[in-house]
Amino acid sequence: PVQERLVEQGTDEGKIAVIRLEGIIQAGGDALFGGGYNHQLLLDQLDHAARDASVDGIVLRVDTPGGGVVESDEIHDKIVEVRDEYAKDVYVSMGGQAASGGYYVAAPANRIYANGQTITGSLGVIMQSINFAELADELGISDQTIKSGEFKDIMSATREMTDEDEEILQSIVDDAYEQFLGVIEDGRDLSRSEVEELADGRIFTGNQAVENGLIDDLGNLEDVIEDMKADIGRDTDVVEYEQGFGFGSFFGLTMD
Amino acid sequence: PVQERLVEQGTDEGKIAVIRLEGIIQAGGDALFGGGYNHQLLLDQLDHAARDASVDGIVLRVDTPGGGVVESDEIHDKIVEVRDEYAKDVYVSMGGQAASGGYYVAAPANRIYANGQTITGSLGVIMQSINFAELADELGISDQTIKSGEFKDIMSATREMTDEDEEILQSIVDDAYEQFLGVIEDGRDLSRSEVEELADGRIFTGNQAVENGLIDDLGNLEDVIEDMKADIGRDTDVVEYEQGFGFGSFFGLTMD
Amino acid sequence: PVQERLVEQGTDEGKIAVIRLEGIIQAGGDALFGGGYNHQLLLDQLDHAARDASVDGIVLRVDTPGGGVVESDEIHDKIVEVRDEYAKDVYVSMGGQAASGGYYVAAPANRIYANGQTITGSLGVIMQSINFAELADELGISDQTIKSGEFKDIMSATREMTDEDEEILQSIVDDAYEQFLGVIEDGRDLSRSEVEELADGRIFTGNQAVENGLIDDLGNLEDVIEDMKADIGRDTDVVEYEQGFGFGSFFGLTMD
Amino acid sequence: PVQERLVEQGTDEGKIAVIRLEGIIQAGGDALFGGGYNHQLLLDQLDHAARDASVDGIVLRVDTPGGGVVESDEIHDKIVEVRDEYAKDVYVSMGGQAASGGYYVAAPANRIYANGQTITGSLGVIMQSINFAELADELGISDQTIKSGEFKDIMSATREMTDEDEEILQSIVDDAYEQFLGVIEDGRDLSRSEVEELADGRIFTGNQAVENGLIDDLGNLEDVIEDMKADIGRDTDVVEYEQGFGFGSFFGLTMD
Amino acid sequence: PVQERLVEQGTDEGKIAVIRLEGIIQAGGDALFGGGYNHQLLLDQLDHAARDASVDGIVLRVDTPGGGVVESDEIHDKIVEVRDEYAKDVYVSMGGQAASGGYYVAAPANRIYANGQTITGSLGVIMQSINFAELADELGISDQTIKSGEFKDIMSATREMTDEDEEILQSIVDDAYEQFLGVIEDGRDLSRSEVEELADGRIFTGNQAVENGLIDDLGNLEDVIEDMKADIGRDTDVVEYEQGFGFGSFFGLTMD
Amino acid sequence: PVQERLVEQGTDEGKIAVIRLEGIIQAGGDALFGGGYNHQLLLDQLDHAARDASVDGIVLRVDTPGGGVVESDEIHDKIVEVRDEYAKDVYVSMGGQAASGGYYVAAPANRIYANGQTITGSLGVIMQSINFAELADELGISDQTIKSGEFKDIMSATREMTDEDEEILQSIVDDAYEQFLGVIEDGRDLSRSEVEELADGRIFTGNQAVENGLIDDLGNLEDVIEDMKADIGRDTDVVEYEQGFGFGSFFGLTMD
Amino acid sequence: PVQERLVEQGTDEGKIAVIRLEGIIQAGGDALFGGGYNHQLLLDQLDHAARDASVDGIVLRVDTPGGGVVESDEIHDKIVEVRDEYAKDVYVSMGGQAASGGYYVAAPANRIYANGQTITGSLGVIMQSINFAELADELGISDQTIKSGEFKDIMSATREMTDEDEEILQSIVDDAYEQFLGVIEDGRDLSRSEVEELADGRIFTGNQAVENGLIDDLGNLEDVIEDMKADIGRDTDVVEYEQGFGFGSFFGLTMD
Amino acid sequence: PVQERLVEQGTDEGKIAVIRLEGIIQAGGDALFGGGYNHQLLLDQLDHAARDASVDGIVLRVDTPGGGVVESDEIHDKIVEVRDEYAKDVYVSMGGQAASGGYYVAAPANRIYANGQTITGSLGVIMQSINFAELADELGISDQTIKSGEFKDIMSATREMTDEDEEILQSIVDDAYEQFLGVIEDGRDLSRSEVEELADGRIFTGNQAVENGLIDDLGNLEDVIEDMKADIGRDTDVVEYEQGFGFGSFFGLTMD
Repeated sequence: PVQERLVEQGTDEGKIAVIRLEGIIQAGGDALFGGGYNHQLLLDQLDHAARDASVDGIVLRVDTPGGGVVESDEIHDKIVEVRDEYAKDVYVSMGGQAASGGYYVAAPANRIYANGQTITGSLGVIMQSINFAELADELGISDQTIKSGEFKDIMSATREMTDEDEEILQSIVDDAYEQFLGVIEDGRDLSRSEVEELADGRIFTGNQAVENGLIDDLGNLEDVIEDMKADIGRDTDVVEYEQGFGFGSFFGLTMD
Repeated sequence: PVQERLVEQGTDEGKIAVIRLEGIIQAGGDALFGGGYNHQLLLDQLDHAARDASVDGIVLRVDTPGGGVVESDEIHDKIVEVRDEYAKDVYVSMGGQAASGGYYVAAPANRIYANGQTITGSLGVIMQSINFAELADELGISDQTIKSGEFKDIMSATREMTDEDEEILQSIVDDAYEQFLGVIEDGRDLSRSEVEELADGRIFTGNQAVENGLIDDLGNLEDVIEDMKADIGRDTDVVEYEQGFGFGSFFGLTMD
Repeated sequence: PVQERLVEQGTDEGKIAVIRLEGIIQAGGDALFGGGYNHQLLLDQLDHAARDASVDGIVLRVDTPGGGVVESDEIHDKIVEVRDEYAKDVYVSMGGQAASGGYYVAAPANRIYANGQTITGSLGVIMQSINFAELADELGISDQTIKSGEFKDIMSATREMTDEDEEILQSIVDDAYEQFLGVIEDGRDLSRSEVEELADGRIFTGNQAVENGLIDDLGNLEDVIEDMKADIGRDTDVVEYEQGFGFGSFFGLTMD
Repeated sequence: PVQERLVEQGTDEGKIAVIRLEGIIQAGGDALFGGGYNHQLLLDQLDHAARDASVDGIVLRVDTPGGGVVESDEIHDKIVEVRDEYAKDVYVSMGGQAASGGYYVAAPANRIYANGQTITGSLGVIMQSINFAELADELGISDQTIKSGEFKDIMSATREMTDEDEEILQSIVDDAYEQFLGVIEDGRDLSRSEVEELADGRIFTGNQAVENGLIDDLGNLEDVIEDMKADIGRDTDVVEYEQGFGFGSFFGLTMD
Repeated sequence: PVQERLVEQGTDEGKIAVIRLEGIIQAGGDALFGGGYNHQLLLDQLDHAARDASVDGIVLRVDTPGGGVVESDEIHDKIVEVRDEYAKDVYVSMGGQAASGGYYVAAPANRIYANGQTITGSLGVIMQSINFAELADELGISDQTIKSGEFKDIMSATREMTDEDEEILQSIVDDAYEQFLGVIEDGRDLSRSEVEELADGRIFTGNQAVENGLIDDLGNLEDVIEDMKADIGRDTDVVEYEQGFGFGSFFGLTMD
Repeated sequence: PVQERLVEQGTDEGKIAVIRLEGIIQAGGDALFGGGYNHQLLLDQLDHAARDASVDGIVLRVDTPGGGVVESDEIHDKIVEVRDEYAKDVYVSMGGQAASGGYYVAAPANRIYANGQTITGSLGVIMQSINFAELADELGISDQTIKSGEFKDIMSATREMTDEDEEILQSIVDDAYEQFLGVIEDGRDLSRSEVEELADGRIFTGNQAVENGLIDDLGNLEDVIEDMKADIGRDTDVVEYEQGFGFGSFFGLTMD
Repeated sequence: PVQERLVEQGTDEGKIAVIRLEGIIQAGGDALFGGGYNHQLLLDQLDHAARDASVDGIVLRVDTPGGGVVESDEIHDKIVEVRDEYAKDVYVSMGGQAASGGYYVAAPANRIYANGQTITGSLGVIMQSINFAELADELGISDQTIKSGEFKDIMSATREMTDEDEEILQSIVDDAYEQFLGVIEDGRDLSRSEVEELADGRIFTGNQAVENGLIDDLGNLEDVIEDMKADIGRDTDVVEYEQGFGFGSFFGLTMD
Repeated sequence: PVQERLVEQGTDEGKIAVIRLEGIIQAGGDALFGGGYNHQLLLDQLDHAARDASVDGIVLRVDTPGGGVVESDEIHDKIVEVRDEYAKDVYVSMGGQAASGGYYVAAPANRIYANGQTITGSLGVIMQSINFAELADELGISDQTIKSGEFKDIMSATREMTDEDEEILQSIVDDAYEQFLGVIEDGRDLSRSEVEELADGRIFTGNQAVENGLIDDLGNLEDVIEDMKADIGRDTDVVEYEQGFGFGSFFGLTMD
């Protein structure tokens, strides 16, 4: 259920849709007390803006430390679809932080804006887990594992990680890393080697990102909206897609 | 109580039913505050789609780390029934992860799609339990067990595991492993030895799975739905079966 | 209050009643928020199906790790009554696990089905308790016990277990074990020695249980229902007895 | 407020009242969320059945590990009153366990039935308390006690138990033990020495209890009811006295 | 608000009032969720029975481990007032325990009954507190006390108890002990030395208490009521004063 | 909002007002769930009784371990005002305990009664606080304090107390002690030296307090009311000022 | 929303407004369950009393251990405004404690009263924080701080305080101390050196404060109101500004 | 939804809008139980005041310890927009504290007022995190990290920080620091070197800030409003923008 709220009344026809991507990018999220990041709802909102003929362009507000590779990729593909199949521009306005998956989804946007001090970059992939085999051993707790194959309990918290384990996991990280490099190369006017140089996982400020080509310009959300109106050439309305209060749907109140 | 929500209005007759399998595969789950994985409801939804003459095919969205062998097998059998007895195609669209039991249920599908970075594989079976006999001993806690037969307290957390224990448990794991290999062999166009080679428990990315034949193609949920329409040859409606809010049934609101 | 829900509309008259035995077998359970295993309700449901002339046969879905010997025995006796006094067939469909008390109640059924990977067996009896006499002593905590007879505080957690204690408890376990062997011998077409050989407490998969004669055939719940229709020779209705929502009875709503 | 629920419709007049004694036998218990053992309500139910002319006999279902000596004695006396002053038979049907106080209240019944595996016996009296004088001392915590007489703080948790303390407490345990032996002697056709031999506190299975004369026969609740009908010689109604939901009285709903 | 509930309909006029003293004897207790011991309500009930001309006598059911000396004394005085100023008999029926303050309030009754195994006696006074000066010192915690006089912080938990402290506290315990002995002497037909011999703080069973003259006879609550009817010479009604549900008064529901 | 409840209907005109001072004497206390000690309400009740012409005298029921010196003094002054400016007698009836501030407020009463075992006395003033400088130091925690003057952090829990600190605090305790001695001297017919002798902080029983002149007579609440009627010479009504249920005022229900 | 409650009906016209300052002086405080100290509400009440022509004077009841310097100063300035710009007298009645910020706000009052035992004084300023650098180090926890300037992490809990840090913080404490001394000098008829002598942070009793000139007279709240009537020369009404129940405003109930 | 509350009725037309910035400056904050700092609402309020023709000027009440650099910058830019594009004056009234981000947002104001003891300054930027690699190691817990690039896990809590890590982070802090210096330079009439001298992170009192030019004048909120009226030359109304109760929107009550 996508709800629209009028933010600015324009003098000409047409609409700019402002969509918010806030919080960690992950599946699920249709929790009873919604309000946090909701993956399916974001995809539906992008889809809704693409199909709504009265929408000229989308400003995506991104304020996230990143999240799942697959979920970031699904948003990335949807933005490419809006841009190429529906020929509608997507501008990204980065907030406090738009790092890792936050940059992944921004890469295909026509233009990327950030605040001078936005924390972005962290281009790369990581798999982290904790191992307390030693602690368990000291306490006198052992784990009894019966398994059908050597790697069935890979990344287990209760046995040491072997080299083969590491090799398998590294191949998975590298696969995702390749995909991330490709997304940046396609989205930005940067060569593969330039991207690789920037993608050692470090974070950049907005200022640094403008210099190294990762983003196009500095600006807050309102500046990005103004720029889009200028590029469209009309003083369109500005609407914002509501997150839709989880609670509302619970008591059956619709929020239109 | 199976509910249907119209997602896309097609121009021709017929319907594609999108069914979601999200969360750990386990029995029960008709909890008061439902919303998580509900085994009986999933079986009823597959059954409903099979019997509903207006449904041409099923797209099963799978986002799970796996779960119970028996429950996975019951879903597998139901999908085989839909495919063979009702001659309706089942396409699987893998989300962030579709590993272990997640792949088990996908194997019989006519076509399997995944995102490049989906985590799948982990083909195999595992039994894990914790033993704190040593810890209890140090603390001065002993367990008093009176039993009728040697193995009645197999996998007990408070006594060491014997070789015979291990033999029995390994036989159970191997039995399930055999069944898993058979499911993959029947479902996929792979020889037994090819399956055995892949089934050492390791995980694969979507990309790797396409190469090694475990899945057919890369694609997000919408691509899978488009492919099915193409294969059916009609621009059918697309409906999604609702999980059905546990809460509703609590206040006696029937959901049909 | 036994409620019935129509699951399948048959073309001929007569009914198959599906009754679910899920969770640990124990007394009580008429808790305010019911929904878990309710012993008295299960006995009433079996009784109701026996007396309802329109019911031709019962399919008992068993998904339990077992529980109290007496409660298992009371269900066993009720099934024998349905089978012999009301001449109605009882087929058992085993789910994820039907071990120990779960097999005890299945033994008298006319036919027992399971999934290939169902965990069953664990034929035997066990009494377990924890003793922290040593821990208490280290901490400087002692127990003051005044008793009328030597064994009044048998299985006490705060004094060591004597040989006589063990003898008494073993006699109780053996008594129940004898009863368990008898139930299997009567229920299954197995000699006493064959039963004894299987009843060392180990667990079996469904596949293994078919081989060793503990169960009759592999099959999921729907296969068992189909078989019963075939054996009855009519395409009867299929109804399921509801657990009856604890909450409903609390607000006085009946759930028929 | 005693409520009656019709369980079986008889063809002749007269009634058998089934009353349940479930949970630990203790005073109080008129808690807001009743449902557990309620001492005053049980006495009232026995009284109600005694005075209700249409009640021919009482079947008392006993499923308890025992409890207070005085409370058990008050139930014992009430059963003797029903048996002798109202000349109505009382049959006891033992469930999972009817030990210690559970046997105390059963002893005066005309006939006692149990399941083969019922845990009964534990004939005797016990007083248990914990002493952490040593622990407190280690921690540097001392107790300051000013008292009027040597034994005023008998069984104190913070000072060692003296021989005189033990003598006093043992005299109390022996007094209750004597009363328990007397109750068994009067209730059962067993000599004093036979009772003493059985009353060393050990537990028995139902089977063992039939052999040693503590109970009369094996049988579940329905068998006991059938036997009583036979002994009465009429196919009476069977009613069950409801525990009465604590909640009801809370909202002022009267339960008559 | 004293509420009356009719328990037994007599054939002659006049009433016996049954009043319950259950739980620890202490001031306050008009808590929102009443139900426990309520001191002011008990005094009002005794007063109400005294003034109600239709009440011939009072049966006080006592089931308490004792409590405050002053509160016990206030109940004692009220019973003496009922007995002497209103010339109405008060019989005490002791339940599971009626020790210390429980015996203090029973002493002035015309007749005292108990169950053979009632725990009574514990005639004496005690002051207990915990001192953790040593523990605090070990932990490095000290207490800063500025006081106007040496004994202002008597029984402080954080400084050692001096001999003078002990002398003062002992004088207080002895004062109360004297009063207790006096109450027993006046109430029971026992000489001072006989009372002193029994009042070393030890506990007695009902049986022992009959022998040593502390109580008059054995009997349960109904026997005491029957005896009183006999002594009155009329088959009066029997009413019970309700505790009055704290909750009721909260929602304004009166419980008459 | 002062509410009155009629306790005894007199035959002549005039009223005795019974006011209860229960719990620790401290400011605030108009909490949502009132019911505990409410300082402003007590002052208003004393004031209300003073101004209500139909009130002949006040019986103050005191059951408190004491509390704040200032709050005790404010109650003391109000009682002096009732006694001298409104020429109405105030009798105090001490309950379980009326020590320290409890005696402070009783001292100006025309007559003080107590139960023989009331705990009173504890005449004196005390300031207690805990210092864990040593503990913090051991743990490696230090406190950073920047202050304008040496004593700004007097009684700090994290630095040692200096002699000057102690001197200042002792001067404050002595000042309050002087005021306490004065209050006793004015209120009771005792010389300064007699008062000083009693005021070393020790506690007395009611009996001891009568002997040493701290109180006038022994008696429970009803005796005190009877004595006042006698002294007034009329059989007046007796009313009790309600604490006023915090909850009532919350739902707007007035409790008159 | 300032609410007024009539406390005393005067015979002449005009009003004295009693305003309560209770609890720690701090910003915020418009919490849902108000009732505690509310800074903005207190300023509005003082303002309301100043502008209400019918108000002749204000009695400020102060019962606080102090709080924020700025908030105390804002109240101080508002009182000076009432006194000088609206020419209305402000008398302060100190309760249990009016120390530190409590005296700061009282200083500008025309007259200050206290109870003999009020705790006041503590004239000075303090900054306290805890440092657990040592503890963290022992545990193996280190803090990673990247900062733009040396003092950006002043008063950090995880690094040692340097002399420069201390200098900066002392300058801030001294600044506030100067302001406090000035406020006392202006408010009270004391020279700078007299003030300095008293302002070493120590606490005084009301009695001591009268002697050293910090306050004018002893008296409780009612005495202060009487004195103001006398000084005004009319028997005015006395009203009290309600704190206004946080809850009320939530349910929209006004509490006039 | 911006709500307005009339605080002062002026005699001339025009309005001064008082807007409150209270609490830590951070994104999000549209929590169900609002009431705390809400970033988007503050931006909307500034925007609303700018566009409302009847608003002559804005008084921004700032009481915050600071917060996010980007969020502070977004507020800074909005204030510059109000000042330059809408030619409306913005005066800041600092409360208890307006440090770090609190000064950042105040810098562009036309005039800055504070209380003498306001804590301001702390001009600079800081990044803090905790590292427990050592602790984990001691406990026997290790972290398993597979990453695509060296700095992907920068500021990880479980590995030591390298020099390169520090370099990257310091570059980010310096970037923000530069931006902060620029904001102060533009906002205040201070040279770059003067700003640098003040911006070593130390805190200043209001008094010190007036001396060093960081703020213009001392004054409380009312003084600032009076000054603005004087500068505008008209006695305008004074309105305050409400925070808007989170709760209201929860029950669907709109607050316009």
